Amino acid sequence: MRKIITISREFGSGGRELGRRLAEELGFEYFDKEKIAKVYEDVGYSEIYSKVLSDKQLMGDTLHYANSFYLYESMHSPRTEIISREQKALRSIANKGNCVIVGRAANSVLKEFNPFNIFVYSDLEYKIKRCKVKGSEEESELTNENIEKQIHKIDKNRKKYYESICDLKWGNKLDFDLCINTSNIDIKNIIPALASYIKSCKK
Amino acid sequence: MRKIITISREFGSGGRELGRRLAEELGFEYFDKEKIAKVYEDVGYSEIYSKVLSDKQLMGDTLHYANSFYLYESMHSPRTEIISREQKALRSIANKGNCVIVGRAANSVLKEFNPFNIFVYSDLEYKIKRCKVKGSEEESELTNENIEKQIHKIDKNRKKYYESICDLKWGNKLDFDLCINTSNIDIKNIIPALASYIKSCKK
Repeated sequence: MRKIITISREFGSGGRELGRRLAEELGFEYFDKEKIAKVYEDVGYSEIYSKVLSDKQLMGDTLHYANSFYLYESMHSPRTEIISREQKALRSIANKGNCVIVGRAANSVLKEFNPFNIFVYSDLEYKIKRCKVKGSEEESELTNENIEKQIHKIDKNRKKYYESICDLKWGNKLDFDLCINTSNIDIKNIIPALASYIKSCKK
Repeated sequence: MRKIITISREFGSGGRELGRRLAEELGFEYFDKEKIAKVYEDVGYSEIYSKVLSDKQLMGDTLHYANSFYLYESMHSPRTEIISREQKALRSIANKGNCVIVGRAANSVLKEFNPFNIFVYSDLEYKIKRCKVKGSEEESELTNENIEKQIHKIDKNRKKYYESICDLKWGNKLDFDLCINTSNIDIKNIIPALASYIKSCKK
């Protein structure tokens, strides 16, 4: 089976949970933003530097804010250089194989590795419910209207980030092997069948 | 598990094959345009009448061509009446349950039955290859350019038909539980895992 699985996802759809459980099922290593940040360290960047590489900060030509002198240099780094370093970290992860990577436009960045690409999405009602159940205490106290605003804002940034990285349309079916609607399903129940499905798709 | 599975598909992506094999795997009855036509007979329409209910003919307010006097009446039937009769046939199929239905906007028409809805798609290269291998001798001799034109034409009609029936955007992920990219995969290999996946999605 293919050794790299990438997961792109709408905020609140459970893409992270799906990725984590899938990695566990397959015995693969799991990578999300935080774990990718650790790889930055290995390729020569400070943890603090890598931690601020959020979607928002990659939007502009320079990083927009900083609360540490370590960040001074990065504030002046051109966006293309930051992205190129992030992609280097992703390739270093991919070269080891057997991994599930959530986010960071990995489906496009790692195209030459022929990954199995999944897009996870769901309806707004489910996302709001999930944010209330899975979010922090503070988040769970937000009104539905405010949660909805946050969801749209985060997805707008993800879309911008993705489309700036890979010149593709975010969420376009054709760029994924499988698109999974998680509305009202229990993610843990689908994992064994999903793992079998991926194994059965030989490219 | 859910007893009705609907399949919408891009032309050439293998949606019919996927539907047929999935029905066989689950022990469900399989319905496509031809088999739905047979149900029309049971609900009181002649076989000849039902056979001409193609996507193209449902586009206008009246049927545009006919080569049989049996069709005279249908040529003057208002489009809405034809659609309403087709939907009646779909509901009669759904009432019996345990079925896989390909096409006819069944995901929307049968919404109240809570079907499991699949959208099947693939890249153009795969569709052309598939048309050459699976099509008639005449079709397999067409140039790639001509096959591409036919694919676009048929999908344009499917889109028009779908969007006139259900006021949804054809192929929109959110209207499906699962979207499957068949590019370069062997459909028969994925069927057991797909059946397990559907079983694991309890709504």
